[in-house]
Amino acid sequence: MSGTEHDLRHHGDAEVGGGLADFAVNVRTGTPPPWLADRLRASVADLAGYPDQTAARAAVARRHARPPEEVLLTAGAAEAFVLLARVLEPRHAVVVHPQFTEPEAALRSAGHPVGRTVLGGDFTLDPALVPDAADLVMVGNPTNPTSVLHPAETITALCRPGRTVVVDEAFMDCVPGEPESLAADRRPGLVVLRSLTKTWGLAGLRAGYVLAGPDLVAALAEAQPLWAVSTPALVAMEACSDPAAVAEAEAWARELAPERARLAAALADRGLHVVPGARASFLCVRAADGIGLRGALRERGYAVRRGDTFPGLGPGWLRIAVRDKAMNDALLEALDELGPHE
Amino acid sequence: MSGTEHDLRHHGDAEVGGGLADFAVNVRTGTPPPWLADRLRASVADLAGYPDQTAARAAVARRHARPPEEVLLTAGAAEAFVLLARVLEPRHAVVVHPQFTEPEAALRSAGHPVGRTVLGGDFTLDPALVPDAADLVMVGNPTNPTSVLHPAETITALCRPGRTVVVDEAFMDCVPGEPESLAADRRPGLVVLRSLTKTWGLAGLRAGYVLAGPDLVAALAEAQPLWAVSTPALVAMEACSDPAAVAEAEAWARELAPERARLAAALADRGLHVVPGARASFLCVRAADGIGLRGALRERGYAVRRGDTFPGLGPGWLRIAVRDKAMNDALLEALDELGPHE
Repeated sequence: MSGTEHDLRHHGDAEVGGGLADFAVNVRTGTPPPWLADRLRASVADLAGYPDQTAARAAVARRHARPPEEVLLTAGAAEAFVLLARVLEPRHAVVVHPQFTEPEAALRSAGHPVGRTVLGGDFTLDPALVPDAADLVMVGNPTNPTSVLHPAETITALCRPGRTVVVDEAFMDCVPGEPESLAADRRPGLVVLRSLTKTWGLAGLRAGYVLAGPDLVAALAEAQPLWAVSTPALVAMEACSDPAAVAEAEAWARELAPERARLAAALADRGLHVVPGARASFLCVRAADGIGLRGALRERGYAVRRGDTFPGLGPGWLRIAVRDKAMNDALLEALDELGPHE
Repeated sequence: MSGTEHDLRHHGDAEVGGGLADFAVNVRTGTPPPWLADRLRASVADLAGYPDQTAARAAVARRHARPPEEVLLTAGAAEAFVLLARVLEPRHAVVVHPQFTEPEAALRSAGHPVGRTVLGGDFTLDPALVPDAADLVMVGNPTNPTSVLHPAETITALCRPGRTVVVDEAFMDCVPGEPESLAADRRPGLVVLRSLTKTWGLAGLRAGYVLAGPDLVAALAEAQPLWAVSTPALVAMEACSDPAAVAEAEAWARELAPERARLAAALADRGLHVVPGARASFLCVRAADGIGLRGALRERGYAVRRGDTFPGLGPGWLRIAVRDKAMNDALLEALDELGPHE
């Protein structure tokens, strides 16, 4: 388990199936939308040719107001973590926890020692907590699993000569207008990762990208397998970078906010602690008996993700995806049937 | 260019487009077949979930009579070369040339020194040509670009304690019955790579796999990005491992053989040297002025692949895909219009 006490390779997809209502995986339901599914089905006619990244790379570059040389398309953000771990040579890598565990797993798998800055309390980030010696810092924004959105200035305060700061923005499109995104910020040493997985319902397609300086992008491309991103994934990246698609994602993000607030309040009413300031498509929750509660919910047909595999979270913690009102109400009803959760 | 005089990163897909008739890329035309395209289109409905390899891995294992623990699914054979280059630690790697250039490019990119055993004459393999000190040998069978099929015993004669032999069988399904395949041979140190790209017309999908001992498969999986193979690629791997699909591929391979023989004879009649014993879906050809011939064919609308980027082949060489009779006849007609090629 990568030399730690946590199972860094545990992910929500291992917790679903068997007919359980899925509150464990952070992929939007009802996706991909019909117009996108149509384009993906049409791309099957072009599979005999090798993938050509030109159009998709240009579209992603336009979306983030960067030159194409600053865009590396990847087979999901997971591939980006592996490529960064292979190409960068950190002497003192630091991962800010709790967060998605793949960045640390990829660094360890590549043989790099990894230090941790573990946030507590309300999981806001104080840049002073990161050791000065850190030459690589990996942070999520908004953060999985806490749902906390760090201000852009807090992230850029981490930047300094000789240090690479990697910001995983896989959930940034949950935030209307993306005011804290650094995707278009071209300062040296700053690397931003994005994913199409969650908003567009493309977990099975493997579509993500890296935004970084041209030298790092070229080095990552050299380490990447030939033809790494499939034609359907390229079609999706081009389509989802279109202004109309970006507007559609933003409209969904605006709809998400009030339902997230309602679910958070309802969970708090039932005696659960909900991490304040949630801005992603999930809530981070602590119960007196998180393991027991998760088990009882599974028995009633509801899968919520265990939180204890995230460094910095204990066995009381759970991560709960925000679904639509009807599905969220069903979860709340199941909670009510289980009695008080103080 | 990876420290050699050859452009190892040049591939046939860079030679097509612009309306040229494609004799440069070794992907079967008219693919994927309708039944497979239907299944791929249907898989779009399942993209919201993360890829689950269980069924595809089991199907590939059954197809080659091996346990699932000896199967690693990859995003094309290209990813397999990168993973092998990362995980193996050869002191003396040898690539048997001429062959597909990605194995050497991947080894060099990973920092390994690479020796070459360059075959000449009719490009048959004499195992004694490979240095005793080689602890990693990479060979293609049948070989791209020579189309030569080595006997299984010639390949296994390369095997010995302390040496890993990697056989790229990306074109083995061009050979009816696959008598020389080592896919089901479980001897220690033998690694077989397969691809769905050529026969099934899935270059854009990224679907291949490694067959090897369970320890190496586990090590490669540890180095592979999480969720590396997309759901549509998994659907294809499962479908194409079905006995009915294997039979369909074999029927196509049987059809290919006489047309390949006819094209080879017709090219020889026109004064070109054709490497004898072709068994894959292409022919390796030498002309007095290969570069000039390739240019003249391009002007007439026909793309054939340059051979000079393959170590061991000079500027006279070309690789020509075998297409259907009508398309091959059109190429022959264009050749006739160009005059004699001695």
